[in-house]
Amino acid sequence: MNIYEFLSTPLESCQRTGPHDGVVLSSRVRLARNLRAVPFPGRAKKSERVKACEIIRKGVEELPEMIGAFADSMEHFDVTDKQVLVERHLISREHAAKSAGSGLVLSRDETLCVMINEEDHLRMQSLQPGLQLKKAWQAIDEVDSRLETKLDFAFSSDLGYLTACPTNLGTGIRVSAMLHLPGLVLSEHINQIIQSVTKLNHAVRGLYGEGTEALGHVFQVSNQMTLGESEPDIVERIHKVLLQIIELEMNARTKMLQTKPKVFFNHIGRAYGILAHSHSISSKETMNLLSLMRLGVGERMFPGVEKALLDELFIVTQPAHLQKQFTDKLEAEERDILRADMLRDRLKKVAGPVIPA
Amino acid sequence: MNIYEFLSTPLESCQRTGPHDGVVLSSRVRLARNLRAVPFPGRAKKSERVKACEIIRKGVEELPEMIGAFADSMEHFDVTDKQVLVERHLISREHAAKSAGSGLVLSRDETLCVMINEEDHLRMQSLQPGLQLKKAWQAIDEVDSRLETKLDFAFSSDLGYLTACPTNLGTGIRVSAMLHLPGLVLSEHINQIIQSVTKLNHAVRGLYGEGTEALGHVFQVSNQMTLGESEPDIVERIHKVLLQIIELEMNARTKMLQTKPKVFFNHIGRAYGILAHSHSISSKETMNLLSLMRLGVGERMFPGVEKALLDELFIVTQPAHLQKQFTDKLEAEERDILRADMLRDRLKKVAGPVIPA
Repeated sequence: MNIYEFLSTPLESCQRTGPHDGVVLSSRVRLARNLRAVPFPGRAKKSERVKACEIIRKGVEELPEMIGAFADSMEHFDVTDKQVLVERHLISREHAAKSAGSGLVLSRDETLCVMINEEDHLRMQSLQPGLQLKKAWQAIDEVDSRLETKLDFAFSSDLGYLTACPTNLGTGIRVSAMLHLPGLVLSEHINQIIQSVTKLNHAVRGLYGEGTEALGHVFQVSNQMTLGESEPDIVERIHKVLLQIIELEMNARTKMLQTKPKVFFNHIGRAYGILAHSHSISSKETMNLLSLMRLGVGERMFPGVEKALLDELFIVTQPAHLQKQFTDKLEAEERDILRADMLRDRLKKVAGPVIPA
Repeated sequence: MNIYEFLSTPLESCQRTGPHDGVVLSSRVRLARNLRAVPFPGRAKKSERVKACEIIRKGVEELPEMIGAFADSMEHFDVTDKQVLVERHLISREHAAKSAGSGLVLSRDETLCVMINEEDHLRMQSLQPGLQLKKAWQAIDEVDSRLETKLDFAFSSDLGYLTACPTNLGTGIRVSAMLHLPGLVLSEHINQIIQSVTKLNHAVRGLYGEGTEALGHVFQVSNQMTLGESEPDIVERIHKVLLQIIELEMNARTKMLQTKPKVFFNHIGRAYGILAHSHSISSKETMNLLSLMRLGVGERMFPGVEKALLDELFIVTQPAHLQKQFTDKLEAEERDILRADMLRDRLKKVAGPVIPA
């Protein structure tokens, strides 16, 4: 089975709900682990990587959580399928660049995903919709405990888990959430928030992680420190920070609606107008406009329209997902036209925004 | 009667039709004349201007063409009313800055308009919808002949009519047309056309004449030379140039529709989408987007919608016309909101663009 057939449809994946999902798109906990007896992937010979990949893949596939999982070596994915996985936030852009000697195991429900031989031998991650960091942590902690009985992880009693990059040393944990923050962006408070969050030793990144843009007003917030604190403490600390950001975002939306309603409606009306009537539109513009419509849905400006529609369009209009809907290889210019055609078609039944009562 | 009450409604004024009015918004011929015995307005003392203004106004008001005309001295117009006249292209921005000692006479049907003590003692102009330069010339020529029997114009047998600025010397004629050229702008041929027209000794200017922007893709084309050629020859020469520009514009539209239909539809769809759904919009953006919708109407993309609707919106969304619809003095920001409210309301019944068969 091809990975694209294995994956839930974009609509199915967007219908998963969770707490605070008006702001928190998803929660993620990932653990970095390495085998004691094998050099880190960046240092290992190809034969060592291939062998390690086989051992790890077997261990992961045997987990009860992985019944019915999808597992394959990275050389069996074509460029578009790899990009589809990136657009779904299931693998990193770095992992998408890997080939033989690297692999992927993805659970049937898509909540558990193990990248093999990315930067570390194992990057195992647990995903949940909305703000559910503890649940995500518990799930990945269980996977980790089970794997530890089968695989010999590189661990130092002084330093903790050893990782390719020292920023992951110790717990090897990265706890993160994807946040939709159009209110803080439009009210121009976002930079101030980013500074505060950074001072609290958390990192704020763009839609596709480190060094990427916050397209669609989506930001990733994650812990910076992996040493000197227990995993539950790290999870708890970031959970509290996220609750604060959620409150700030909701306040920013409410305040803008109260003090600058016309500016607010103007953003959302124009976003709808362009999305529903353009005949050529880039992926980037689409994300930013869908984000504004999503904000409008949250403020009851599109009666009868579900957030899931916008989230689905956010996925299916991205380059690889768009390409999957056509057999011929599309150039960027053709994609812009087909993306606009799709948006006009899908928004045909959606009436223009109304001013909320 | 206030000038605003005297004027036709914007809708009435936009329902006047003429040949080639898909491209030529209006034709105009103006003659510059001065009294022999009085210094040019820029040189005359106020008392001389006031006296000359009275004499001229009396002469003009007595013309049979001016039965039922509106006549007044410029100090009796408030700033908004003056700006309304500028937005209707009935007086120049320079004349709007005048006060006591300058005046205006406007015929009942608004086709004849005499500015008194603008740069010259008389700037008399004839206006017609569409391409009707000869008709406009004949009308103003008749006014000129009649006035000449009553007023002693400064005339030299060597130089012709004397004018304040030497660029008007001789015939004192300025023949011009307002052209809507979105096809040439979008296809990026406009600069080439402007160069060619300039080489033929014609001037190309923006929406409000010399030194103004071509807002809404509207350009004024006029003769440069006023000496050495008879008036009918000047009219005939510019008429031929305009016919060529009309053809180039229509070809540009057709070619763009054939070779880049998606780019074409994209411009028009987005223009409609923004106009129909924004909650704040500047006058400049409005003009440019209405221009694109007007182009769409010409290509049957808005079945049932008349050009006149767009032309009317083009007028009523301009600052002074917008101000006239409200009693309180509006700030620019308030105008942007009220303009958007008006556009959303007026376009509520207009469905989005369709791709022409």
